[in-house]
Amino acid sequence: MAGAVSSHGCRRLLGPQLRDLLIQKHCVLFDCDGVIWNGEKAVAGAPEVVGLLKKRGKRVFFVTNNCTRPRESYVQKFSRLGFKDVVQSEILSSAYCSAVYLRDVAKVQGKVYVIGCDGVHKELREAGVPFVEGETDVPGATIFDCPLDSDVRAVLVGYDDKVNFLKLAKACCYLRNPDCLFLATDRDPWHPLPRGRVTPGSGSLVVALETASERKATVIGKPSRFMFECIASQFGVDPARSVMVGDRLETDILFGSRCGLDTVLTLSGVSTLEQAQGYRDGRTTDKAICVPDYVVDTVADFLPALAR
Amino acid sequence: MAGAVSSHGCRRLLGPQLRDLLIQKHCVLFDCDGVIWNGEKAVAGAPEVVGLLKKRGKRVFFVTNNCTRPRESYVQKFSRLGFKDVVQSEILSSAYCSAVYLRDVAKVQGKVYVIGCDGVHKELREAGVPFVEGETDVPGATIFDCPLDSDVRAVLVGYDDKVNFLKLAKACCYLRNPDCLFLATDRDPWHPLPRGRVTPGSGSLVVALETASERKATVIGKPSRFMFECIASQFGVDPARSVMVGDRLETDILFGSRCGLDTVLTLSGVSTLEQAQGYRDGRTTDKAICVPDYVVDTVADFLPALAR
Repeated sequence: MAGAVSSHGCRRLLGPQLRDLLIQKHCVLFDCDGVIWNGEKAVAGAPEVVGLLKKRGKRVFFVTNNCTRPRESYVQKFSRLGFKDVVQSEILSSAYCSAVYLRDVAKVQGKVYVIGCDGVHKELREAGVPFVEGETDVPGATIFDCPLDSDVRAVLVGYDDKVNFLKLAKACCYLRNPDCLFLATDRDPWHPLPRGRVTPGSGSLVVALETASERKATVIGKPSRFMFECIASQFGVDPARSVMVGDRLETDILFGSRCGLDTVLTLSGVSTLEQAQGYRDGRTTDKAICVPDYVVDTVADFLPALAR
Repeated sequence: MAGAVSSHGCRRLLGPQLRDLLIQKHCVLFDCDGVIWNGEKAVAGAPEVVGLLKKRGKRVFFVTNNCTRPRESYVQKFSRLGFKDVVQSEILSSAYCSAVYLRDVAKVQGKVYVIGCDGVHKELREAGVPFVEGETDVPGATIFDCPLDSDVRAVLVGYDDKVNFLKLAKACCYLRNPDCLFLATDRDPWHPLPRGRVTPGSGSLVVALETASERKATVIGKPSRFMFECIASQFGVDPARSVMVGDRLETDILFGSRCGLDTVLTLSGVSTLEQAQGYRDGRTTDKAICVPDYVVDTVADFLPALAR
């Protein structure tokens, strides 16, 4: 269970065992990038697996730290990549869950100052959470003399490819108020781009603000448990009858373990079998919680278990 | 000595003891902001103290993490604030020392990619270190398609009030090359501004890039020892006959202790006597090295000791 007894982790799942596992589970959570697709290409067999799980009466959810798109754009991407009938309520992004947290948990009274992309803005707007966007282009404005909004009661930070010094400095000024919430969509440190390039992730901007404000952000995305709490409270899902499928040990597997779910590492993304076994067999105990219960090569390994 | 036996630290220095201390020392290092001036105002008595120290044959140096100005602009500031005859060679800034490090220690073969202000650019130019400035305004350019300079062999990061996403992302791309040096002027996390505002410091941008690159920067400014090594190698200064005067425990006092200097905390800046005594009397040993040997209210306390 949940990597607690690490010497039993990393078990290879083949057809019959997977069938047994799925009989016990009512709900399957998938990470997206590296698991069911890579960029604009579906992982082979993934659309069929998702379709068959639903056909067999399982609940399926997609849990992603990517905060750049609103959920409606994910619905389009699922459709474009051959996944049938994936609906908005099955998609949990860190942008959407940040909006839910601000509205339903923090019940923030005032505006949210946002460092982030369209995905965050649209989810906040849809959730009815008032916000101000960080300025991108105010010629000549400096942190010495720019206006600050006295209604700001929270700072939300996520991936923002238009971030600049003034945006960061304004966030620091708001965070001087200890009653101003400090929220982050996720801590993903960087992302690979084509041709060997990389881009800083949300986590890079989060630590910049944590350092400058000498505060710690509340993080919404995996491995924080909040995204599962959103699913559990909305759909009455039982963790003991749920399984998390992901490609990153420190994000997806840790998330699943923390939430009390069985965990499956798929080797189609970032983490490798050697890393998982190293955590299982290593002398340090702090990584034991990142050891997956099961391992598959790709989600296509689910297909035989779902055949009738 | 240097806070090693912490129960003996934080000794109040009065006239006769200060006179005895100064008899043993040939060299006095001062931090600037919060020690000899606050913003555009000299600390009362500071110009006289510096003048008298020199008159008594002491070597005086100014050691600052502020990388925004070139040393020539510090010379003007000293003069403007009433300090007589302070010359450029007595001023060690993190921008100047970064240029020295790149030229004389790293002997970097290629260009330096800079995230920083004029202070850094001018010192690099003066040291003859070739560099490229991070773009501030390239309409439409993105990290997907912008040009990267194949001659870049080092990334230097300091305070930059024109930093933006593309600058950070380009630095990350350069840092993918393990042979590309990763240098930071300093780790100051934030700076106070007028009217309760704050601005992120170099340290905020440094951790952003450390997170996104999964690398650690080599830091030039205090508390790293390199600025003292610059002084020692250029002027043959003996640490046992030198004293460091500063206002920040984790920066100035730690720097002095690490370099083997006696340390004096002045209470005219950031750190308080309570913090220093707390470190001295606390149960954790990791802060013992930040305990100053001596404490004064302001550098004006040196005046009676320097009178004839």
